Amino acid sequence: MNAQVKTFSQDGDYKVADISLADWGRKELDIAEHEMPGLMSIRRKHAATAPLKGVRVTGSLHMTIQTAVLIETLKDIGADVRWASCNIFSTQDHAAAAIAATGTPVFAWKGETLEEYWDCTLDALSFPDGKGGFLGPELVVDDGGDVTLLIHKGYELEQGDESWVNSASRSHEEQVIKNLLKRVQKERPGYWTRVVADWKGVSEETTTGVHRLYQLAEQGKLLVPAINVNDSVTKSKFDNLYGCRESLADGLKRALDVMLAGKVAVVCGYGDVGKGSAASLRAYGARVIVTEIDPICALQAAMEGYEVTTIEDTLGRADIYVTTTGNKDIIRLEHMQAMKDQAIVCNIGHFDNEIQVDALYASGAEKTNIKPQVDKFTFANGNSIFLLAEGRLVNLGCATGHPSFVMSNSFSNQTLAQIDLWANKDRYEAKVYILPKQLDEEVARLHLEKIGVKLTKLTPEQADYLGVPVEGPYKPEHYRY
Amino acid sequence: MNAQVKTFSQDGDYKVADISLADWGRKELDIAEHEMPGLMSIRRKHAATAPLKGVRVTGSLHMTIQTAVLIETLKDIGADVRWASCNIFSTQDHAAAAIAATGTPVFAWKGETLEEYWDCTLDALSFPDGKGGFLGPELVVDDGGDVTLLIHKGYELEQGDESWVNSASRSHEEQVIKNLLKRVQKERPGYWTRVVADWKGVSEETTTGVHRLYQLAEQGKLLVPAINVNDSVTKSKFDNLYGCRESLADGLKRALDVMLAGKVAVVCGYGDVGKGSAASLRAYGARVIVTEIDPICALQAAMEGYEVTTIEDTLGRADIYVTTTGNKDIIRLEHMQAMKDQAIVCNIGHFDNEIQVDALYASGAEKTNIKPQVDKFTFANGNSIFLLAEGRLVNLGCATGHPSFVMSNSFSNQTLAQIDLWANKDRYEAKVYILPKQLDEEVARLHLEKIGVKLTKLTPEQADYLGVPVEGPYKPEHYRY
Amino acid sequence: MNAQVKTFSQDGDYKVADISLADWGRKELDIAEHEMPGLMSIRRKHAATAPLKGVRVTGSLHMTIQTAVLIETLKDIGADVRWASCNIFSTQDHAAAAIAATGTPVFAWKGETLEEYWDCTLDALSFPDGKGGFLGPELVVDDGGDVTLLIHKGYELEQGDESWVNSASRSHEEQVIKNLLKRVQKERPGYWTRVVADWKGVSEETTTGVHRLYQLAEQGKLLVPAINVNDSVTKSKFDNLYGCRESLADGLKRALDVMLAGKVAVVCGYGDVGKGSAASLRAYGARVIVTEIDPICALQAAMEGYEVTTIEDTLGRADIYVTTTGNKDIIRLEHMQAMKDQAIVCNIGHFDNEIQVDALYASGAEKTNIKPQVDKFTFANGNSIFLLAEGRLVNLGCATGHPSFVMSNSFSNQTLAQIDLWANKDRYEAKVYILPKQLDEEVARLHLEKIGVKLTKLTPEQADYLGVPVEGPYKPEHYRY
Amino acid sequence: MNAQVKTFSQDGDYKVADISLADWGRKELDIAEHEMPGLMSIRRKHAATAPLKGVRVTGSLHMTIQTAVLIETLKDIGADVRWASCNIFSTQDHAAAAIAATGTPVFAWKGETLEEYWDCTLDALSFPDGKGGFLGPELVVDDGGDVTLLIHKGYELEQGDESWVNSASRSHEEQVIKNLLKRVQKERPGYWTRVVADWKGVSEETTTGVHRLYQLAEQGKLLVPAINVNDSVTKSKFDNLYGCRESLADGLKRALDVMLAGKVAVVCGYGDVGKGSAASLRAYGARVIVTEIDPICALQAAMEGYEVTTIEDTLGRADIYVTTTGNKDIIRLEHMQAMKDQAIVCNIGHFDNEIQVDALYASGAEKTNIKPQVDKFTFANGNSIFLLAEGRLVNLGCATGHPSFVMSNSFSNQTLAQIDLWANKDRYEAKVYILPKQLDEEVARLHLEKIGVKLTKLTPEQADYLGVPVEGPYKPEHYRY
Repeated sequence: MNAQVKTFSQDGDYKVADISLADWGRKELDIAEHEMPGLMSIRRKHAATAPLKGVRVTGSLHMTIQTAVLIETLKDIGADVRWASCNIFSTQDHAAAAIAATGTPVFAWKGETLEEYWDCTLDALSFPDGKGGFLGPELVVDDGGDVTLLIHKGYELEQGDESWVNSASRSHEEQVIKNLLKRVQKERPGYWTRVVADWKGVSEETTTGVHRLYQLAEQGKLLVPAINVNDSVTKSKFDNLYGCRESLADGLKRALDVMLAGKVAVVCGYGDVGKGSAASLRAYGARVIVTEIDPICALQAAMEGYEVTTIEDTLGRADIYVTTTGNKDIIRLEHMQAMKDQAIVCNIGHFDNEIQVDALYASGAEKTNIKPQVDKFTFANGNSIFLLAEGRLVNLGCATGHPSFVMSNSFSNQTLAQIDLWANKDRYEAKVYILPKQLDEEVARLHLEKIGVKLTKLTPEQADYLGVPVEGPYKPEHYRY
Repeated sequence: MNAQVKTFSQDGDYKVADISLADWGRKELDIAEHEMPGLMSIRRKHAATAPLKGVRVTGSLHMTIQTAVLIETLKDIGADVRWASCNIFSTQDHAAAAIAATGTPVFAWKGETLEEYWDCTLDALSFPDGKGGFLGPELVVDDGGDVTLLIHKGYELEQGDESWVNSASRSHEEQVIKNLLKRVQKERPGYWTRVVADWKGVSEETTTGVHRLYQLAEQGKLLVPAINVNDSVTKSKFDNLYGCRESLADGLKRALDVMLAGKVAVVCGYGDVGKGSAASLRAYGARVIVTEIDPICALQAAMEGYEVTTIEDTLGRADIYVTTTGNKDIIRLEHMQAMKDQAIVCNIGHFDNEIQVDALYASGAEKTNIKPQVDKFTFANGNSIFLLAEGRLVNLGCATGHPSFVMSNSFSNQTLAQIDLWANKDRYEAKVYILPKQLDEEVARLHLEKIGVKLTKLTPEQADYLGVPVEGPYKPEHYRY
Repeated sequence: MNAQVKTFSQDGDYKVADISLADWGRKELDIAEHEMPGLMSIRRKHAATAPLKGVRVTGSLHMTIQTAVLIETLKDIGADVRWASCNIFSTQDHAAAAIAATGTPVFAWKGETLEEYWDCTLDALSFPDGKGGFLGPELVVDDGGDVTLLIHKGYELEQGDESWVNSASRSHEEQVIKNLLKRVQKERPGYWTRVVADWKGVSEETTTGVHRLYQLAEQGKLLVPAINVNDSVTKSKFDNLYGCRESLADGLKRALDVMLAGKVAVVCGYGDVGKGSAASLRAYGARVIVTEIDPICALQAAMEGYEVTTIEDTLGRADIYVTTTGNKDIIRLEHMQAMKDQAIVCNIGHFDNEIQVDALYASGAEKTNIKPQVDKFTFANGNSIFLLAEGRLVNLGCATGHPSFVMSNSFSNQTLAQIDLWANKDRYEAKVYILPKQLDEEVARLHLEKIGVKLTKLTPEQADYLGVPVEGPYKPEHYRY
Repeated sequence: MNAQVKTFSQDGDYKVADISLADWGRKELDIAEHEMPGLMSIRRKHAATAPLKGVRVTGSLHMTIQTAVLIETLKDIGADVRWASCNIFSTQDHAAAAIAATGTPVFAWKGETLEEYWDCTLDALSFPDGKGGFLGPELVVDDGGDVTLLIHKGYELEQGDESWVNSASRSHEEQVIKNLLKRVQKERPGYWTRVVADWKGVSEETTTGVHRLYQLAEQGKLLVPAINVNDSVTKSKFDNLYGCRESLADGLKRALDVMLAGKVAVVCGYGDVGKGSAASLRAYGARVIVTEIDPICALQAAMEGYEVTTIEDTLGRADIYVTTTGNKDIIRLEHMQAMKDQAIVCNIGHFDNEIQVDALYASGAEKTNIKPQVDKFTFANGNSIFLLAEGRLVNLGCATGHPSFVMSNSFSNQTLAQIDLWANKDRYEAKVYILPKQLDEEVARLHLEKIGVKLTKLTPEQADYLGVPVEGPYKPEHYRY
């Protein structure tokens, strides 16, 4: 472990790479605050009433500068916060240091092992009870569902169902989680049951995490109310689309300084992430080819002038591959082996299994590390490919993730969801909710002034003609934006 | 009336501008068929079983070349069709002639008066019963809801509610409708009640028409099952977005041959129609300013780099104004009076009341007709503006509407909706339905081969991982594309 | 001949299609004047001094609304003008009528035969001397060099060199010219010699026409000073690039209403015309493929993300072909025979020989005329292609050419060149000149206010630092913009 | 000085930051070679004949990875090379280390003082003569003209003209140069005269450096033949335009991770650098405003849909300012004081005097260093601005400069120029030459295969029709591309 550790004390425990980076982190936090008008406006509006006063909140979300602004927003409106990252590579160490320096417990550094990662997650869940034991969170801010998974699996085990922890693991990470749960079972008997007793809700912001929540709900296994933040328009259509449009090229540039103009780039998937990625690459002068399974998205890609074909059709002529699907096995070992020499392969979708990274490691290809997050693999035929961020999110692994302004939209949704969950903790059931459209519009509204937008106001006659309130919401639920 | 009329006979009655244009229309129909693979594929699939065999279908939809392909598709799958346009300016006379020449009754020409327009609508509803009387349609293809309105209002009158027909009219057109209903009451007593008895459903494709249907359904007044075709992805995200991206500039160019590069263009509204319009104008080198009431759409416009402000802010510096809202009074008389000299004003949204056309006519501004659909109005201050298509849809009034390929998507939805309504006529209630996602994906799929798209196929393992069927549908209902 | 003819009289002779179109033409002229600030500014500046007072000017240039504004500008600054079109299809009949109605002799209608075309050219050259004979022009405004060719060939013949007129003709048009010259020789002996005696210069605005002038100059055969207007930045980089970006799609749309999104379009040549054409097609959502011979232009196309390959590589997968080269035999018969069914073929470069039109006519392919300027050719294999404007310029044949604003740049250059030629008639030699950069900058400057541009002014210190005058010119001659 | 120094020895002397970075540099060099097909092709073609065999070459050019490939290309074709950077911030230390490790003398590190910078330049000029003294270069590769300046000023001094070294200096840097020359005068009497005796030529690649060369030539002071590499199409239209399109956003992102979408960005100057910068910012969704002095460039910007106005007009509403002019005092202190809070100011043009950096330092604004190359200045009114790279080139200071592929074009021109200078050393005069168009086309050709471009070949008939050779060159000298 290459982290600096401060254990339990008056002013907060932490595990970060280098606490001396706190000053630099604070300077960038100051800058980010100007770019996150939504969060700052929520602070102003709710600081006095402190709607989360004393509420224990665990966050599992990329520990970046932007997340630091989110953390301080939660604290400003009263919460007692502990935090871990949701990705072993995505922490910005100066951001983590700045947060740790204020006394907020944070457990995250860039380049964790999987064992360290899950230990950090447990640390973020463990609120000292002042008697040497631990309480769990009352609310969870989740990104990808790892905290939700851990609590559910821990609770299941304590309920006597040992089938999963004793089953064969399909991946190394799965085994790491099982080992952790077994350890907790020994060290903190009954812990998860006590955690669940206090837990009031979770807000989740990824497609993948939301999908897991709906599955749990369908199976009747969801333990708390959940808010699907991902499907707020100001999240899915902003973070996924505009965020990736800004950060994909940033990751590619910082990794390899590659000229994008004139290159053939394959974007696998044409959802919001794919749309943003393709737009960015084309704007640089790359020739973009899209792969899709969904005929509607495929037709959308064609209407924008992209060639749409299969990945097999592109092998040997494409220079850059980007996965954006949320699915697995998109780029398979046999694809990588047949690529043009020096092709670049990366993922901006969800998990690293979009690319068959494990198969690549096991393939006998010769691995050369160029610099952190940039590896060259040379195959028997003499061709090489570059794999970025070990197949994990290239914008977070090789650059600094989405910029502050777009994250302010996502995190405003997260914060409003946390306030909503707590306010309705006695009313909500263990189901998946989405934020009402009015809050979605409110998030957008909070970001307009910063960029000089002037809204038109409906007259009462016009509102009447349309059959909508003058103040909104303006669109039916099924509206697609 | 400047139409050629053929009254009831063996091989079809019609009112068209010039039946001698039929040959030209047929040549363009042949071309359009190649651009409408969805409709042609439906013909091939269903011609043998003829799912609409003998079904009386009334259509009220812009009588263009593309609609002619729709009409012949409905006939190929068995329907007995009568048709009118849904707009006094949108008929392509050679298209109407080509349809009339085949013996299909069609009642439409470019430049109808409002009286003629509603007479044509009645003609399209009047299926000769062979005994000198008339039957009504069993299914209706509607665009804007005029046929649906007429039947509902006629039925209401025959049910004894005379309040509406005797009320003061808010527009000339409203009075025309009332006059027509009173005439039918005299000439065909009990007609609307008989029509409703046979009527099994309506499919509607505009935002405005769908809005009316939902209102009727909420009030419990909807008489038949309705399918909302507008909100199929392959309609709203295709026709509205890609259609306008192609046809707005076409309308502007044919009207005034204006250079778009370097001009300041104001797009009122940033829904799908606004998005397509703004993209087109920018691509030509115009500087686009957007006006919006909805903060989410406003933020989307800003993220694309458009200036977003109020219309008042643009007066005196903008050259072109385009309304895309579906709302009324967007461009008001006082706006037009304050515009830059020679500003161009047009509408691609819905009704002509997006622009205060009536107020303009009444304002004392001097009107000079440049050519059909292009009028110059000169104000007292010496400044002039150009009003296109009298405030009606500029792409249909000044050009030929959306191109065939995009209409093939919309009309495939219409056709599948008609088949669905008939197949489920005994099962559906008087509610508003939308097409199942699988049909939406099917419509897209039918258009891929023509443009050379190759879809990727999910493996069973991937489908399992995502929790979707290998063959689709692939997305949750709330997915926004 | 389907023209209305008025022979010599007090107030001007003419051959136009329909003089009753004059009113409509005048209305459009009024509109165009607002879009042509450069020409209007030249009128204001020079009307009082009339630098072309009494100078006989013959123009051979597409007789459009924009050209009408040029003609009236030349007249306003004193010239005695006669005009013909430079293309059998490019005349806008209402523009010609409007000019004829003012008493300015014009000889042009849409759809001339080649014999009629060259007769019109002669008419435009024939200024009545008041004694039943004819004088020639003192200045020529040329577009493509047809007037220049005719005078040079006529003069050559009168000098006793009969080799060309008696040689075998490589095209029908060549024979038409020879026949005309022989006729003139009989009817007006010594005419060309007298014409040359008075002729002081020509300004020429096409790449092709300029190329011919340089060839004549190199061979020592050029009879008068010539100004190459084509290579003014405000011509070649504006008319060719921005003009085609506006008018290519216009031609395609008016011809076939085709959806451009999703289509594969091949642009042959990536000079300024090709750059504008490719940009326009891509903006509509077409997938553009470029063909090039020049490695620099090819690399430019690749840097913009276009696929660059040979035309042979695209056969069977491309939907639209556009030639932009100024070269010949770009699209050959064997290409057309191997194209995808219903491919569209058109030319926006220079002559119709960019496409092997003659070979197509002779090929036995079945020709179906869809409407004026749109023909379908069906090959033995059952496939068809559409040929637009018979291979001549699609933007002029199928639409109305470039919009007024961009033509105002080109025609301001033409007008300044005419003034310059006359002012320096005693100083210039029989060489090809280009306009000084200061005039080029002046043309740009005249167009800025109309579109709201505010220029920054150099301080004297900055001008000194750069080594340029405060008022310009700002760039070295070799600067490429 | 924070450099590692190795003094004269068998295998090369150097001053670099950290020689242990050589391995990392070599890995990136390997990658860059694949992206620089022009240089690699020149190596293959000329390695055997070694046209620069034994020629002493001094380079003064940003010591990046790409330059390292240039250096090794020069060595492969025989040259004896010594190198310095031409900018105190632009060195990539791992690139310098990799070159030093091969025994090639290199004197460059990121963050030199001005004194160190000019010492390094002298080191690069000083070829040990084996007898304890120094020879000068026979050829110079220059970027900005610093080596050329030093030799000319040293020679002038040795010729007895002491006026300049004794004059008052207008900047600190000017004094540094004078001090160096005085020191050399003492330590190496007659050195510059001996240098000039052997010096055969210089190739220069910047607008500014070329401008200096033309001035020297006009004054009759130029000492050697010079090749203007900047005005090769494959340099000015590639490096300036496409290079900046890739690297401007890269600099902004690495400096401040700022969201570009929705921001108002002002690009000062719309030459090639401005065109690339504006295109990049717009593609990210920024709203771009252009300032210009040249009406032609201003009209070009307007035709692309940019607002064109003065910088004063933008103060208070713009978020990002980028200078691209090559001029001075573009962004003045009073501009910076009136900017929106947190505005970002940077330069991608030429010298840091495009922004009044000295005035800013002297203004009393409070300076906070955020991280290297990123400073915040807070004014008395409480507003702050961010200045990037201290006003020097933001793409080199905050990112890694242009990507390899585009630099391969520029450096292929440099290499061909060096070969040409040496081959013609007995023929060329002390004038400024440009590379013949055929070599320009050749440079383009060398880069096509890598990106899959297939060129069309002229037939002899077509070449004849155009009047150009089948193999090129294809365009007249004045062609603007």
